[in-house]
Formats: sequence, structure tokens, C-alpha cells
Amino acid sequence: MSFDLSSVNLQEVHDWSVDLARRAGQMMLDGSNKRFQNPSTEDHKTDAKKNAVDLVTEVDQAVEAFVISEIEKRWPSFKFIGEETQSAGADSVLDDHPTFIVDPIDGTMNFVHGNPWCAISIGLSINRIPYIGIIYSPFLNEMYTAIRNQGSYLHKPNQPPLRLPLQPPTPLAVNTALIITEWGADRTTIGTSALSESSKENFDVKLRTYFNLLRNSPNMVHGMRSYGAASLNLCSVAAGHNDAYWEGGCWEWDVCAGWVILHEAGGFMCEGNPPENFEADVEGAKVEEATLIGRKYLAIRGAKGGRKEQEDLAKWVWKSMEGGRMTYGR
Amino acid sequence: MSFDLSSVNLQEVHDWSVDLARRAGQMMLDGSNKRFQNPSTEDHKTDAKKNAVDLVTEVDQAVEAFVISEIEKRWPSFKFIGEETQSAGADSVLDDHPTFIVDPIDGTMNFVHGNPWCAISIGLSINRIPYIGIIYSPFLNEMYTAIRNQGSYLHKPNQPPLRLPLQPPTPLAVNTALIITEWGADRTTIGTSALSESSKENFDVKLRTYFNLLRNSPNMVHGMRSYGAASLNLCSVAAGHNDAYWEGGCWEWDVCAGWVILHEAGGFMCEGNPPENFEADVEGAKVEEATLIGRKYLAIRGAKGGRKEQEDLAKWVWKSMEGGRMTYGR
Repeated sequence: MSFDLSSVNLQEVHDWSVDLARRAGQMMLDGSNKRFQNPSTEDHKTDAKKNAVDLVTEVDQAVEAFVISEIEKRWPSFKFIGEETQSAGADSVLDDHPTFIVDPIDGTMNFVHGNPWCAISIGLSINRIPYIGIIYSPFLNEMYTAIRNQGSYLHKPNQPPLRLPLQPPTPLAVNTALIITEWGADRTTIGTSALSESSKENFDVKLRTYFNLLRNSPNMVHGMRSYGAASLNLCSVAAGHNDAYWEGGCWEWDVCAGWVILHEAGGFMCEGNPPENFEADVEGAKVEEATLIGRKYLAIRGAKGGRKEQEDLAKWVWKSMEGGRMTYGR
Repeated sequence: MSFDLSSVNLQEVHDWSVDLARRAGQMMLDGSNKRFQNPSTEDHKTDAKKNAVDLVTEVDQAVEAFVISEIEKRWPSFKFIGEETQSAGADSVLDDHPTFIVDPIDGTMNFVHGNPWCAISIGLSINRIPYIGIIYSPFLNEMYTAIRNQGSYLHKPNQPPLRLPLQPPTPLAVNTALIITEWGADRTTIGTSALSESSKENFDVKLRTYFNLLRNSPNMVHGMRSYGAASLNLCSVAAGHNDAYWEGGCWEWDVCAGWVILHEAGGFMCEGNPPENFEADVEGAKVEEATLIGRKYLAIRGAKGGRKEQEDLAKWVWKSMEGGRMTYGR
């Protein structure tokens, strides 16, 4: 039996989450300042690199602990899934119950480098569907917010909120597309200097797909981008700055909030892998919405030509996988 | 005989160029507003995609024409090299004479997509050495400036200028490095589904190098990023947000301004290709500064361990090319 949606005041949860994101973002700023702007402290002197990683773990854990404790106080009946608690067996948590799905620092590698492209991502799922999405980048000073069926917005300092997408949707086509991809941390491969065609390793599947999307042909994509933070990648597609974002290996806390923001901007979050019999019947294949905990996603912006153009782009990405599949366990 | 540097007031040229960049940036903003925020005009209705490309060409050419005419009025004795005039045989222009080297819109593909990661890049070379660099991103509202031997700075609205790098240089090492690369527009390849080891095509060399840098090993790089605008990539390395930027195929107007900004932040712009006999003597190989018009660059941030760490990183990138070389004509 699904959860009764009317028992949740979405606007209230949304507003509270925006405030929480700002407070958590301030913790990121403070942590970064501590690391980068007081280089003369004893702590910093000893081993800059080690401290950098330690600091991220420290801030990551501190932000998540703070978020959990605030949620427990204000919404004691809601569940929680977050990156730092995942190892404690959170897989079994996701059900129809309202569940906060949070990444305290998305783009940790950027954060450790002092690269501003990182954010806190706060999502709320109900009945396993993302309903609220708040993504706040304290370094970029950009706040993206959305409630399902109520639009998504970009908030910048001293400006009225901007409705997403930021521009009217133009036609969507492979050969004019800017596609975001990420190399990820799992880069195991079979070959050593050339790509093995038969390899089923995720890294090989990704590389072969990039190669096929990029190489000179009438259908080659316009360009490929990598920014290093899934949540902000989704915001970028929602805004219309990029056309699509293909990803395998990230987790539900990387995408839950961005999913709502994308959806409300006319975007479509479909499966990162094609259906099983795709190669046998490309035309007849269904382009399904992704599963929240599936770890394989293909986010596509709103298109002037609607769902048909989005599905054509998805099928082209899938075709470029040449029968390969990404496989990520829980 | 080299040009007498003391006859140029670098500060005056710098200040004037900052003002010029702001005015040119305003033209980019106006052009983008025309395209994206008045979608109901007749012009827009007919063919959104075609108009997008037309608009970029139009704004690109208008900005360059404006910049040229302003330079001719104010600095009539200086030379000029720019993207839009290159086709008119500008190759022969670069000599020891003071020369403005300008990209009116760097990151044009981003610009056409309404992606804010684009900029105007204004450089001044004297004796074929970059002496002044101004890079202004009107959408990000960030202005990077530098005069050789006088430091480089990031200017944001309502804030005092920030000296680059933005943080004290940490140790530089391959396995903690974030490296920027770009796929580029030239993506001709020999293979069709796997990489040909013997291919000398630039795209194959790039892909094989990315593969070697990324694949699972004790020396695998931390991550790889692609943003789509050479000038801002250089600023990002200068700031310390990324560790290096390896590039082949872009032009002197993409790198001249960023070169000064990087250099003044403690960075090193070395050759994108290794020297001829590199594979025979890796240890003894010299890591030379790049040539302004060479079209192959490897920008490396300032390192806590100084030039030695920068050279080690350069050699690792070169080794990852597996004997391949990038070849770009004039």
C-alpha cells in the first residue's frame, strides 16, 4: 500500500530543506576556509595532502551527522538514506515511506581540490518517487529547488528566482548535443593499451561508448563535458546548459534531488542501460524512466520536439554502447 | 632585434584592456539575451537551431570587429591576431612587435548552448612572449587579469581582487591530480570500435592517453574534467581548482592571455608533446616551455615542490602518450 501523499506538507518540507541546505553549505564553506585560508596553522603544516583528504571526510561526516540530527528533530517519522550511512546497511531502507536521500557533499574530489563545483544535495522520496529536490552549491552561491508538479527554480543572490529551464527548449539532436559524462572512480579495465571489444568492465563500456559518440561521423555529438558532481550535472541539464548526462556508478543520493529539478524543467531521467532485447529491436524498444536505486541514469533536457526527441537521443546513446551494459551492484 | 619593452606602458595597456573586455562581454550578454530571452521574435520562430549558430557567428564577428577597431584607434602601432581574422593569413603576423592576440568568444559551443562557461580572452605578446592577459566571463561575472612579473588576480563583483593561486600550493602528484582535457572538434580516427595502436590520428592519440592516465593503477589520475573553453581552463589551473590542462589543437588566441595568468600564479606552460627522443631517455628529457603558436600545450599549476613536481607530472602525461604525437598544422 502506497504512502498517503496528502499527509505530507511538501511546501513546508521544501522550505525547511532550503534552510537546512544553507546551514550545511555554511559548514562546507567553513571547512574549506579552515583548510585553505589558514595555511599557517600547525595542522596544515604537517601534511597538506593528507589533511586535505582528512578534512573532506571530516566535513562530509559532520555535515551528514548535522543533517540527520536536524531531520530527526523536525521530521522524526521520516526515514533517511545518506552516503555516509550507506555502509551501515541502508539498502533495505528505501520503501514507500517519506525518505530523505542526502549527499552531504556531492563532488567531494572537487571539494578537496578547492574546486567550487560541489554541492549539498537534499532529496525527499515518497513511494520511491523523488518529490522534493534541493541542491545548494555554497561556492557558486547557487541554489536549485523543486517540488514535483510545481516547477524548478534557480536562486542566485539578489535576484528573483529563475524558472528552469533558463531558455525555451530548442530542438534536441545528437549532432548538436553537449553530453556530460564522468569517468568515475571505478576504472578497472581489461586491455592495457587498446580496448578489448569483449570486455564487460564498466570502464571499457564507458570508454567505447564515448568513442562511438564522439568519433567523426554525421551523428557525432557536438561535445562532451565532465564537471565532477552528479547533482550539479543534473541542474546543468535542467537549466539547459547541457543536453544530456549519462552516468553509471553513482548512487541515489547523487541523483534524487536533481531528478525532481530535471523533471520539473521538462527533462527526462531514463535508464542508463538499454532494455535487454534492445539490439534486436531498436525501433520498438521502450525508453523507460530510470529506477531511483538503479545506479545507471541518462538525464535528458526538455526538448522542443518533446518526448520523441528525448527518446531518439536515448536510443543513440544506447546504440553507441555496442551491446555493452554497465553493471553496478548494491 | 627584439622589441624595447620599456617603450610600452604595460599597466596602461592592461587597464584599457580590462575596460575593453567588459564592453565586449556586454556584447556577449546582449547577444545571448537577444537569442534566449526574446523567443517570440519572428527571427527566433523560424529555426531556433540555425539561428543559434548564426547568432554566435554574428556576435563572434561583431565582437572581434569592435575589438579591432578599438585597438586601431587607441594603439595604432600594435599588431592584431584574432580567431576571425586568422583565415586572412594572420600566421605571418606574429613577430617581436607588440601584438594583441584575441579570442572574442572562447568556448563558442558553450555560448551557443547558453552554457555560461565562455569568455573573451585578450592577450598581448611582446617578443613572442605573453605579457598581458585579460579573461572575462560575463556570464560567470569573473574577470582574470595579469601582467607578467606583477601577479595574477581574480576579480568578482563587490569583492576585493583575489591574488592567484587562491590557496597555497599543495604537493603535486599524478595520483592526486585533476586534469582537464578537451575532446575538441577534430575527431577523425582510424579504428571503428577499438583503438588502433598504430594510429597517428590526433583523436586516437588523445583517447589512448586518456585511457592510460585514467585506468586503474597506482598512478591513475584522481579525475579528468572537460569544460569546453581553453581560456577558462587555464584560469582554473592558475587558481588551483584543477592541477593541469593538456591540450592539442587550440590556437594562440585561446592560450595567450591565460598563459600570463597561469605563469603569474606559479604555473608552468610546457609543451603538449614530448621532445623527439623522449622515450629513449625519460629521465634526461628536458621539459621545455611551450611555443606560443605551437598548438600543443600542457599547463600545470604551481606546486609546493616547485618545478621538479611540475616536470614529473609533465613526463607522466608524455609517457601516457605511448610514443604518439599530436600533429596540428598552421
